[in-house]
Amino acid sequence: MSRQSLAGQLSRCSINTATLGHRQPLETIIEQVASLGFGWIAPWRRELEGRAPLTIARQIRDAGLRVSSYCRSTYIPSSDARTFAANLDDNRRAIEQAAQLGAESFVMVVGGMPEGSRDLPGAREQVREGLASLLEHAQQMDLPLALEPLHPMYAADRSCLSTLAQALDLCEQLEPSDSRYLGVAVDAYHCWWDPDLHLQIARAGAQRRLLGLHVCDWLVPTRDLLLDRGMMGDGVIDLAGLRHAMEDAGYRGPVEVEIFSFNNWWQRDPLEVLHTCAERLQSHC
Amino acid sequence: MSRQSLAGQLSRCSINTATLGHRQPLETIIEQVASLGFGWIAPWRRELEGRAPLTIARQIRDAGLRVSSYCRSTYIPSSDARTFAANLDDNRRAIEQAAQLGAESFVMVVGGMPEGSRDLPGAREQVREGLASLLEHAQQMDLPLALEPLHPMYAADRSCLSTLAQALDLCEQLEPSDSRYLGVAVDAYHCWWDPDLHLQIARAGAQRRLLGLHVCDWLVPTRDLLLDRGMMGDGVIDLAGLRHAMEDAGYRGPVEVEIFSFNNWWQRDPLEVLHTCAERLQSHC
Repeated sequence: MSRQSLAGQLSRCSINTATLGHRQPLETIIEQVASLGFGWIAPWRRELEGRAPLTIARQIRDAGLRVSSYCRSTYIPSSDARTFAANLDDNRRAIEQAAQLGAESFVMVVGGMPEGSRDLPGAREQVREGLASLLEHAQQMDLPLALEPLHPMYAADRSCLSTLAQALDLCEQLEPSDSRYLGVAVDAYHCWWDPDLHLQIARAGAQRRLLGLHVCDWLVPTRDLLLDRGMMGDGVIDLAGLRHAMEDAGYRGPVEVEIFSFNNWWQRDPLEVLHTCAERLQSHC
Repeated sequence: MSRQSLAGQLSRCSINTATLGHRQPLETIIEQVASLGFGWIAPWRRELEGRAPLTIARQIRDAGLRVSSYCRSTYIPSSDARTFAANLDDNRRAIEQAAQLGAESFVMVVGGMPEGSRDLPGAREQVREGLASLLEHAQQMDLPLALEPLHPMYAADRSCLSTLAQALDLCEQLEPSDSRYLGVAVDAYHCWWDPDLHLQIARAGAQRRLLGLHVCDWLVPTRDLLLDRGMMGDGVIDLAGLRHAMEDAGYRGPVEVEIFSFNNWWQRDPLEVLHTCAERLQSHC
């Protein structure tokens, strides 16, 4: 059991680049994140466009950083078979990029219902089928897939995978043995409310399926469903309690900050945001 | 098993008065709801202010309506014991009003964390303690309490009770025998996303704890966390599937429409709203 704070442990902390609002080239962000003393970074696919993943991987390594995760999957469900297949192909390419980057995992946000559909079980079945196929590719690439359940308010259009229990059921179905290539990313924002949270973290830990821990905060009031996430300490989530639960379950990986905040943090100077992340990770996580 | 539609069955349908935006006196609303052929109505406490519940009860009866539920509880958790006790007292008065109205149940929206708190388990413990006390009063008044789990996006400030499973666990703790005075209200908006939904409905039905079914729809996109709920058929919820699951589990009570829609339905003429509800209940639920 670990009950120590993250003070002085920024080397255990990661910055998910979405936190900075995708306003600068990835090369700049890498240097900024490294300069503040963070040990890890989590880039997004859009930031690699027009770049060679191996070149970026070298820059990240040379800056003294590691890649906590690579964000993120193309949504899987579709109303037609051709698009469903294309979605899987696109995810296979992303898994290759993640491997080239040396990422700890590829983050899977699985998608919701196809437009016009009310068939939630059908979307979930497509996700199951798609993941079964992608898992084979992940094994070939030696790159774990981290299923990220999203908050239930995204169940319609972003993720029909809404709880840790549901994600772990899927892991057990698709990869019954102790996990090698299928696990979960636990995001505080998406999971904090779940009465079953600590039980499911323990379950995931016992199966060695804890592949990531993302933090931000839930603001009261929350003014937008997608882009009003809070800086750690500005909201109501017991973030230290969550980290301790993860560590008690055996998680030893990085603590990754991911904040979507259009009207606040994305309007501020990136270095100010990074300084605030560093401070709040050490005081509130 | 019942697979018939609600066509021609408005006598099985209820209007929760929040659907009309609280813009008219309750006396007017009662007449309007009855004139459209609905069999039930669910008033809010604010509408009874300055009125004698027994007088309103008689008007409702005389209009040919019954009271599907009475909305709703004062939030239970508080940061101080005195306010906690006052919250319970206020709920006791409301339970008495519900009994005088002849309501099928009193709807319990339990509340979230006290302001400034990050202690979700603590709020849940206060809810458990408060409900244990209110249950005694409900038994004396012969008036069932319907726990309504709210969508997880309200976990911080409106309801630390977020899922049917959690509500049923609480019911079993507080009233271990087959339910007489403690059950659940299943609201499509709050529960539709839950991978465990049908299993928990069956569980509630087996314990005779299904006390209410509320319908509206989840819009894509949803523009406001509280006041952007949709008319049945305008969103993505499989409402007929939900009703069938309830009926398969033994539910025989009314289907109650409850729509919070500040920018759309609350701006329209109440009779237009009622006509639309009647049509959509018969075509989409």
